[in-house]
Amino acid sequence: MTTVVRRRMGVEERKQQLIGVALELFSHRSPEDVSIDEIAAAAGISRPLVYHYFPGKQSLYEAALRHAADDLADRFVEPREGPLGARLLRVMGRFFDFVEEHGPGFSALMRGGPAVGTSTATAMTDEVRQAAYEQIVAHLDVGRPPARLELVVRSWVSLAETTALIWLDGRRVPRAELELQLVHDFAALAAVSAAYDDGMAAILLRIVADEPADGPFADLVGRLAKLGGQA
Amino acid sequence: MTTVVRRRMGVEERKQQLIGVALELFSHRSPEDVSIDEIAAAAGISRPLVYHYFPGKQSLYEAALRHAADDLADRFVEPREGPLGARLLRVMGRFFDFVEEHGPGFSALMRGGPAVGTSTATAMTDEVRQAAYEQIVAHLDVGRPPARLELVVRSWVSLAETTALIWLDGRRVPRAELELQLVHDFAALAAVSAAYDDGMAAILLRIVADEPADGPFADLVGRLAKLGGQA
Repeated sequence: MTTVVRRRMGVEERKQQLIGVALELFSHRSPEDVSIDEIAAAAGISRPLVYHYFPGKQSLYEAALRHAADDLADRFVEPREGPLGARLLRVMGRFFDFVEEHGPGFSALMRGGPAVGTSTATAMTDEVRQAAYEQIVAHLDVGRPPARLELVVRSWVSLAETTALIWLDGRRVPRAELELQLVHDFAALAAVSAAYDDGMAAILLRIVADEPADGPFADLVGRLAKLGGQA
Repeated sequence: MTTVVRRRMGVEERKQQLIGVALELFSHRSPEDVSIDEIAAAAGISRPLVYHYFPGKQSLYEAALRHAADDLADRFVEPREGPLGARLLRVMGRFFDFVEEHGPGFSALMRGGPAVGTSTATAMTDEVRQAAYEQIVAHLDVGRPPARLELVVRSWVSLAETTALIWLDGRRVPRAELELQLVHDFAALAAVSAAYDDGMAAILLRIVADEPADGPFADLVGRLAKLGGQA
């Protein structure tokens, strides 16, 4: 006869388990539609025990969003090696992994759903955007970025967010296409800025000089030239 | 001797006055930092009388945001005459007028500040985004837009929002430059999409065919070609 010994979890371990269970549920339905009862059932513990670890629904949701926000910010961390286009493409791949893993939870985080206090959700999304911004800027070797470059990078982070939210709503364009498109969008936004500002032009030309002939930027330029020929 | 006769305002007129006063205050400070007392003082009426017209701070704030949201959506209405680049530039001019007039109130609306319930603010911003999207799509003569075009237009609306929020935070780039840049960004996002999709290419080529040689799109293409020569 074998006896199943249920090991007693430590406080931190139990909290992490509940956060994991909550995030798993939020990946299928919006946090506001998930009850503490469901989280308790999925974790195999009683509702009062959930409240023992998290004093209220709000605090568990906030802890789950905190965890997700940190995870999302981490996806933007990329070694400073190789051409920029390839780095950005890897970042976008990990970003869409996150979006796909979390689905409705991602939407809730980005849209500041009613499940968490607005100011908390807003602060967390701002923090993720800031982390993403800083990670991308770090790849551009510019020190303190000029206002126009800051605008391009922050705009692009916001574009990645919007594109992912639209993708989640029906998935009508393959995500691999959108990952590449966002890398191209970065180049396009930078090029528009560079067309009217010498400082931005210098930064863009330096980046492009390091791009390989078979990279995403070169491919885009070739295709745009072809499109220009048709116009 | 002259006697000043204070005309008694009707209910609707008084409500509109209070909304106007609130929006004026929100154009200098965030709605969450403005009290009902201040609104009453600015309107020249007592605090209880404000509550007579609006049962709570929340309901006055919601009415003010409703008014601002409708106003903002209206700025995207543009006659379907002349080249697209010039139309978009006029829309961006009116959009930045709104942003400049409302300042912190615009930020609060777009970021769903704590002053209004999150779901209300989210619903209103979504409504404005949808109205802006529909207005822009109406200019493209495509009937029901394909998924990739929808993505471009929705992305661009979001880009306009982000650019305006970044502009408000320090105004480090002149707004006229950003208005033109956003028109160029539209062309750039459409071009990136068109470079990889024949349907989008057909739409873009049709738009570009109607553009004048001295329009914003032609100017951008000329400058990009020059930048390409330097690369």
